[in-house]
Amino acid sequence: MEGMERCSANCVSLTPITFLERSAAVYGDRASLVYGRVRYTWRDTLQRCTRLASALVRKGISRGDVVAALAPNIPAMYELHFAVPMAGAVLCTLNMRHDAAMVSTLLSHSEAKIIFVDYQFLPMVKRAIKLMSKTTEKLPLVVVIQEYDQPSSCINGVDSALEDLEFESLLATGEVDFKIRRPKDEWDPISLNYTSGTTSRPKGVIYSHRGAYLNTLSTVLLNDMPSLPVYLWTVPMFHCNGWCFSWGVAAQGGTNICQRTVTAKEIFANISQHNVTHMGGAPTVLNMIINAPISEQKPLPGKVTVMTGGAPPPSHVLYKMRALGFLIIHSYGLTETYGPATVCSWKPEWDSLPEDQQAKLNSRQGLQHVGLEGVDIKDPVTMESAPADGKTMGEVMFRGNTVMSGYLKDLKATQEAFNGGWFRSGDLGVRHPDGYIELKDRSKDIIISGGENISSIEVESVLYSHPSILEVAIVGRPDDHWGETPCAFVKLKDGCSANGEEIIKFCREHLPHYMAPRSVVFRDLPKTSTGKIQKFVLKEEATAMGSLQRSKHSS
Amino acid sequence: MEGMERCSANCVSLTPITFLERSAAVYGDRASLVYGRVRYTWRDTLQRCTRLASALVRKGISRGDVVAALAPNIPAMYELHFAVPMAGAVLCTLNMRHDAAMVSTLLSHSEAKIIFVDYQFLPMVKRAIKLMSKTTEKLPLVVVIQEYDQPSSCINGVDSALEDLEFESLLATGEVDFKIRRPKDEWDPISLNYTSGTTSRPKGVIYSHRGAYLNTLSTVLLNDMPSLPVYLWTVPMFHCNGWCFSWGVAAQGGTNICQRTVTAKEIFANISQHNVTHMGGAPTVLNMIINAPISEQKPLPGKVTVMTGGAPPPSHVLYKMRALGFLIIHSYGLTETYGPATVCSWKPEWDSLPEDQQAKLNSRQGLQHVGLEGVDIKDPVTMESAPADGKTMGEVMFRGNTVMSGYLKDLKATQEAFNGGWFRSGDLGVRHPDGYIELKDRSKDIIISGGENISSIEVESVLYSHPSILEVAIVGRPDDHWGETPCAFVKLKDGCSANGEEIIKFCREHLPHYMAPRSVVFRDLPKTSTGKIQKFVLKEEATAMGSLQRSKHSS
Repeated sequence: MEGMERCSANCVSLTPITFLERSAAVYGDRASLVYGRVRYTWRDTLQRCTRLASALVRKGISRGDVVAALAPNIPAMYELHFAVPMAGAVLCTLNMRHDAAMVSTLLSHSEAKIIFVDYQFLPMVKRAIKLMSKTTEKLPLVVVIQEYDQPSSCINGVDSALEDLEFESLLATGEVDFKIRRPKDEWDPISLNYTSGTTSRPKGVIYSHRGAYLNTLSTVLLNDMPSLPVYLWTVPMFHCNGWCFSWGVAAQGGTNICQRTVTAKEIFANISQHNVTHMGGAPTVLNMIINAPISEQKPLPGKVTVMTGGAPPPSHVLYKMRALGFLIIHSYGLTETYGPATVCSWKPEWDSLPEDQQAKLNSRQGLQHVGLEGVDIKDPVTMESAPADGKTMGEVMFRGNTVMSGYLKDLKATQEAFNGGWFRSGDLGVRHPDGYIELKDRSKDIIISGGENISSIEVESVLYSHPSILEVAIVGRPDDHWGETPCAFVKLKDGCSANGEEIIKFCREHLPHYMAPRSVVFRDLPKTSTGKIQKFVLKEEATAMGSLQRSKHSS
Repeated sequence: MEGMERCSANCVSLTPITFLERSAAVYGDRASLVYGRVRYTWRDTLQRCTRLASALVRKGISRGDVVAALAPNIPAMYELHFAVPMAGAVLCTLNMRHDAAMVSTLLSHSEAKIIFVDYQFLPMVKRAIKLMSKTTEKLPLVVVIQEYDQPSSCINGVDSALEDLEFESLLATGEVDFKIRRPKDEWDPISLNYTSGTTSRPKGVIYSHRGAYLNTLSTVLLNDMPSLPVYLWTVPMFHCNGWCFSWGVAAQGGTNICQRTVTAKEIFANISQHNVTHMGGAPTVLNMIINAPISEQKPLPGKVTVMTGGAPPPSHVLYKMRALGFLIIHSYGLTETYGPATVCSWKPEWDSLPEDQQAKLNSRQGLQHVGLEGVDIKDPVTMESAPADGKTMGEVMFRGNTVMSGYLKDLKATQEAFNGGWFRSGDLGVRHPDGYIELKDRSKDIIISGGENISSIEVESVLYSHPSILEVAIVGRPDDHWGETPCAFVKLKDGCSANGEEIIKFCREHLPHYMAPRSVVFRDLPKTSTGKIQKFVLKEEATAMGSLQRSKHSS
């Protein structure tokens, strides 16, 4: 249309950096972050992030460079979420459970110029860099983050502290009037998230400023999170940038309550002390909360909204959380969708249903949030949508601005993932008559037994309602006759006992017989640091167990 | 970064159309709109809008064509906000107070291909088109919107009904499986809003899909509006597309409560009947509410959030609204900023202040919402920012994605408005030490008396606290000696009396003497249909009154 002009007055790149600037302007005096005795205001946080961005540029960081970080949910980790983009660089947060070999691989792959390391992980990172030095001379600069309440001269148990750069000292070299580098294009990368995943081969998922901005607002909205929330950090910030809440709490002028470790005791204590209004957690974190000893529990001071995701929450877990007074919002997504992508929006008509039915309805993955164009259940070959019958299984696929830009240095994998014009999640699900989708399994976790598909999630969900079971995972075990049969790995609650036969019997009472496990193993379950059970480890174990004695389905 | 790919999986144009599609998917059975006995669900609304878009295309509407609408807040008006963009066209909503000459001018200027007209306005629009026919043969097609509870054969008092297209009949010609036309580029125009304004020369402000999407989410967020609101339509939809709530209610799966006319009685009745949670209104609407006879008032059924804006709300009005139990959110913006652009974010520390101080703090315009890059008080010549001293006056300027694309067919005006890289609002204001801005006047409304600037808003704010005054406007009256002196136009409350001297005395008790009016006129105040007082009319009247007898400031 004639008369239009695009200029700096009406065209600005979308970026989460504006959230921080705005909160510093509007809520300058309000607490941005609390960590033990550490307390910053939004004005402080903007100043500190600006200084840190300036310091990074002085250290030679250029636009598009990768800056890595390996730390728990401590203040520095939060500040890096703004400071690194404000230096025009790309933040790559690494999973705390990685070992030196993996960290070395990821630092090489990402070509990180600097790595910020919490003091606890320094020895491991040193080993990683030593490994790197065998093949390259381009080693990242290490910046150590010390514990906050320690005098700066004391670095706990770190071998070579004196020669390393230290976070606060580096920050102090930056200028507070540094001109923040904004993205030249809102599609520029803001962060790099290696899929920690349930598989052993991580891929580097690239997020853009645009996607981060939009997924942040969408996540705030799907949580019905009003302004000035008090957000407890139980989701690791290294996981999808804290499900975008790293930026979201700034967008709403909230207060970040940081904690180094995630224990039920600390969660209840922080909620009570800081009047927490919002938090998040994978179902394993919820499980930890509902199974906490009474002595560690405290009454909630007010409404606490918990967003859960990362794995399908057993309805029994949702039910118990609600009984404790938590309001549960169930969201679903993948690293490739910036974390939260769908939400099981609560419907007022559910209010009158029995609690267990409510929990069951809410354990479904729902539909796209406001920033995502669509989520669908599709036949991966024909790309046809599955009917809304609650039965026909298909691959969960996503489309929209909050889908990743691609996998770093792996255009082939990117193109495969986007083949057909949708992002193929690898998750299998169904669409219910009310339109909501429900996950049935990862495509690689589905068990095919005698030609029947068995959803491991469905079997697990039944077992989570067993009074003695704390955690459970179902994987396929090779079987000469059936191809595979379900094998249950079970961790019992403290002080509880059960044997395999009882557990199999319990399943047969609640499921078709062919779906019930045929073998049960009692053990601790291996997990990623985001609380996902590493099924590939268990699958290896089940495979090593070999085929069961020739048997027949007892169905 | 290597490995990225932009394709339909991760790159979609931002557009409010997705809000409707999503609500139809998530909240298909929930009421989207209620108007008397008319009630639609979100599934209905998507279907009806799709049919209507299809019908428009069948009528020859192409991408970028303008479709005009002249109607109160009735269902058709809501549906046009989606259907017209879904046909790839641009919605131009016209002010209901325009006369035939103005409508003719705007239809010609916008080159509207179709105009949708509420039956009440049909005779006037016919006259407008007759006027047009003198200069052009390209006349818009007229579609009449009948009253909903009338049988379709009956068109109230309309002369030539039979030859006109009728809304529901047109809609019925559309196909429900029509492929919605999405914007090819998110910068494509979605709507055209002529500034109704306080001046007599309207300009056509162009909104983009991108800006509309972002301002909608920002407006939802600045209202802390959770999902499933019940929104009462007291803001005209033709005004900045209903401050973006036309799209915003869809974004949150809410229910639109439509009403043809805006009276205190109807407002209270609808709030009570439908459990309204949110509404909006210019200060004149609030004034109507607080001055409603007790017989028309009803107790609020729950929390009702009212967003006010469009003119600076006198703190006295805010105070009284709060006393009635309404929660007030004060936002400020212009047609050129898609309506809401700033918000006076409430700070918890204000809670402990006396009510009148709270209202005074909340009557300021605040700071940018989350979608706007910035708002500033600048020297219009040097572009330097005013200090945050609460005194230094400057021009209010905006920058960000929620600033208009430009003025239709007036690139010169567009470039003047964007000169310096900011949108120049023409409003004058100050920045307070806490960063919040406060409007002092429109630059053309400021009164310069003996070299002193007098803010008409400041004088009006004092007079609104006078117990007998219902409405007031201050304009400059020519004065031989002082250049100008303040002249008050006053409307008294029913049953109240006051004379000019009393009113001048009241001002002198609360203001520096030179700011007090020197003449007072009692009369009804002329208003635009959005409730803004038309000061240019009063200024003409004051000018016609001529210079006061030679006088001296009594300061």
